[in-house]
Amino acid sequence: MVVVGAGISGLTAARRLVQAGAGSVLVLEANDRVGGRTENLDAGNGVITEGGGQWVGPGQDRVLALIDELGLTTFKTYVQGKSICLRNGNRQTYEGTMPPIGPDALADWVQLQTRLEQMASTVPAEAPWDAQNAIEWDSTTFGAWLDSNSASAEAKWLFTLGFSIIFAEDPHNTSFLRALQAIGTSGGVEHMFNTTGGSQESRIVGGSQLISQRMADQLGDRVVVGSPVTEISQESQGVVVTSARTQVRCERVIVAMAPADAERIRFAPGLPGRRAMLQRKWHNGTENKLAAIYDEPFWRGQGFSGQAMTDLPGAPYVIDNSPPDGSVGILLTFIGTAGYGPGLQWSDAILDDPGSRRSAFLNGLTTLFGPKAAQPTRCVEKDWLHEPWIEGGVSTRAPGTLTQYRNAAREPVGRIHWAGTETGILYEGYMDAAVSAGERAADEVVQKL
Amino acid sequence: MVVVGAGISGLTAARRLVQAGAGSVLVLEANDRVGGRTENLDAGNGVITEGGGQWVGPGQDRVLALIDELGLTTFKTYVQGKSICLRNGNRQTYEGTMPPIGPDALADWVQLQTRLEQMASTVPAEAPWDAQNAIEWDSTTFGAWLDSNSASAEAKWLFTLGFSIIFAEDPHNTSFLRALQAIGTSGGVEHMFNTTGGSQESRIVGGSQLISQRMADQLGDRVVVGSPVTEISQESQGVVVTSARTQVRCERVIVAMAPADAERIRFAPGLPGRRAMLQRKWHNGTENKLAAIYDEPFWRGQGFSGQAMTDLPGAPYVIDNSPPDGSVGILLTFIGTAGYGPGLQWSDAILDDPGSRRSAFLNGLTTLFGPKAAQPTRCVEKDWLHEPWIEGGVSTRAPGTLTQYRNAAREPVGRIHWAGTETGILYEGYMDAAVSAGERAADEVVQKL
Repeated sequence: MVVVGAGISGLTAARRLVQAGAGSVLVLEANDRVGGRTENLDAGNGVITEGGGQWVGPGQDRVLALIDELGLTTFKTYVQGKSICLRNGNRQTYEGTMPPIGPDALADWVQLQTRLEQMASTVPAEAPWDAQNAIEWDSTTFGAWLDSNSASAEAKWLFTLGFSIIFAEDPHNTSFLRALQAIGTSGGVEHMFNTTGGSQESRIVGGSQLISQRMADQLGDRVVVGSPVTEISQESQGVVVTSARTQVRCERVIVAMAPADAERIRFAPGLPGRRAMLQRKWHNGTENKLAAIYDEPFWRGQGFSGQAMTDLPGAPYVIDNSPPDGSVGILLTFIGTAGYGPGLQWSDAILDDPGSRRSAFLNGLTTLFGPKAAQPTRCVEKDWLHEPWIEGGVSTRAPGTLTQYRNAAREPVGRIHWAGTETGILYEGYMDAAVSAGERAADEVVQKL
Repeated sequence: MVVVGAGISGLTAARRLVQAGAGSVLVLEANDRVGGRTENLDAGNGVITEGGGQWVGPGQDRVLALIDELGLTTFKTYVQGKSICLRNGNRQTYEGTMPPIGPDALADWVQLQTRLEQMASTVPAEAPWDAQNAIEWDSTTFGAWLDSNSASAEAKWLFTLGFSIIFAEDPHNTSFLRALQAIGTSGGVEHMFNTTGGSQESRIVGGSQLISQRMADQLGDRVVVGSPVTEISQESQGVVVTSARTQVRCERVIVAMAPADAERIRFAPGLPGRRAMLQRKWHNGTENKLAAIYDEPFWRGQGFSGQAMTDLPGAPYVIDNSPPDGSVGILLTFIGTAGYGPGLQWSDAILDDPGSRRSAFLNGLTTLFGPKAAQPTRCVEKDWLHEPWIEGGVSTRAPGTLTQYRNAAREPVGRIHWAGTETGILYEGYMDAAVSAGERAADEVVQKL
């Protein structure tokens, strides 16, 4: 068997195939590293900061089981102390998960959340296109719904900001049906927003890329990096997979890539229409991660958690990303490099110039945490927009995509099976769905043996 | 100078550069033919039927001038006799442009058209993102607007069907702002729908690909086909363009491709964020063209124009595509191969199997024009979904694209200038915009000499 892609999903699939005794297994990876959309970045002195997916939380059973199986451990995201909410120059601190908003805004937040979760409960997890209002909801955007249904500017701002970070694109791009599906299959709005008790609760000791590195170590020379697959040809007796380094004939192939990335492969015969269009039209959100590294997490001593939600262009959402022992301090933010529409407006300089992004980031941190924040020992940026072989980070959908291409993301095409977080059901877009999708694709192949 | 892409836009740009004496000019084309999204298909006995863009109409001054300049001629689309409207088994014939709908549906059609054209008039042609309601309109889809604002099922059906064919995708995918911009810059709703007096008024004698072939003949060995460009590197003194066959250093380069197709090229340094995301998120609509060729245009003798609007899955819109002398008869339809959502629902068999598509097409034609239609001398299908090097046909936009990436489609990036119909202002997506965009890009380069 051949697996294309050595991210968490592909490596999970390969490992399950080996465990099931499914014959010889080969993983072909285009990049010169494993991990896909997880990557440990060097923060100096043996410390890492995660450049991609990094958090796990309650309910994400498949990734938590895998972490355990691989002998890895998790630790809690740092949340002690005061968090900061800064908007229109108005700075407030708060403890816990909910920023301090006025009573009207709070009531509005509650009605928005309640209605979203009620609607989400009518969307079938495995077949959102079968929801009674599927076409209506898939014909508009989450942003348009928020604009029409929020009564307070504050609540709307919090929703738009939070989901801009979560989806890595402005909600005005995102199908409202996809947003509802995500809310319904990712534990609800608060789970998606929260650290403690939510999807940002814990991190992996040593960094999330270790999940893939451990699996790759176990798979040994079954994993070939630097070998982009260029063609997958189905023949009557099997599949021929051609990569830059090798050509392999096998019984079945698992393609464990984001749909848009699979578009780089030539398929013979051509893919069915729905799958072909899905690959073209399903484009993930993209945002860069910027981390500032300090000698120590100085904000902790001042009673701050390091977390902030703001309208500062260089630091819209900030969180403490220090290593578990706090041996150095790391503050992390997200910046979309392509403009975010009405939700988050960045200048062309911030969008196009890494130096301007870094300045805006440090200016924002200084506004939030004082002059010490202006003097990091180093800054690290992970630029996902220009990452070779990987397009975008987080799973979203343009209007029309779900109702028109339906299950094309995971429906096998002859001897081709599909993995990748985009083909998972629960926590799609998170590491958890990468694991469950890899397991499901391996099961599909094993069933056919 | 190097031009990437030998469609109408690239060849127009190259020809204008030569005419302006702008030094040596080289056109690099990935495909083994010129013409891009225009292609003459062999219909037997020296007759062609157009596989791509084919019509021109009043107001499309740039392409009409070019046709004239190249010594080509046009002829009127055949419209004599009765057209057919068939819906829910109810068959009616009519003459002229407007299908026979009831008085309520007609009133509804008029109010929809009036409101659309009024809103379209508030959208600046060159900067639709500056419209007062830009964010609201770019956050929803044309289909959602039609669903909410049409009072009669009949008028809604006609609008949805017509615009599904025009945009080559279901309006439930299309940004409402883009739909308004298109209406405002393409002569209005009737111009977009109509043959006589509209965008489907005339065809080119010998087929639309002749426009490109004539220009390529004039440019001679300046045009190199079968040479996909893989990289464009900007350096301080110029640009290095690398293709499969050659590497050229030049002063400036014009990329004359649909934005999504430019994504196949590696750019160094990486493109600015907005342009990079535009290329990923701007995906055109795609539909196949099917033509049935008969010994004679037998429907004409029976008093039919050959034109029909129907809910038959294999023949939603039919038009006479015979050669000017009527020496053979050709009926043409459009089928989307990826599912169209609520507007047009096709079975998986029709979407995925050319044989089923052909059967559905001939069944539809037989329902419309009688048993003779079941016996063509041949059928020709142009499959744009699986066309190498070219993605999609017609210019649309997903919600959010216009307001977020704004003028990134045509704003030069250093020494890179952009052409292609998607960078035109008037009649974007038509051949006319391909011509005006090629001329504009050539002008930009000449200004820099």
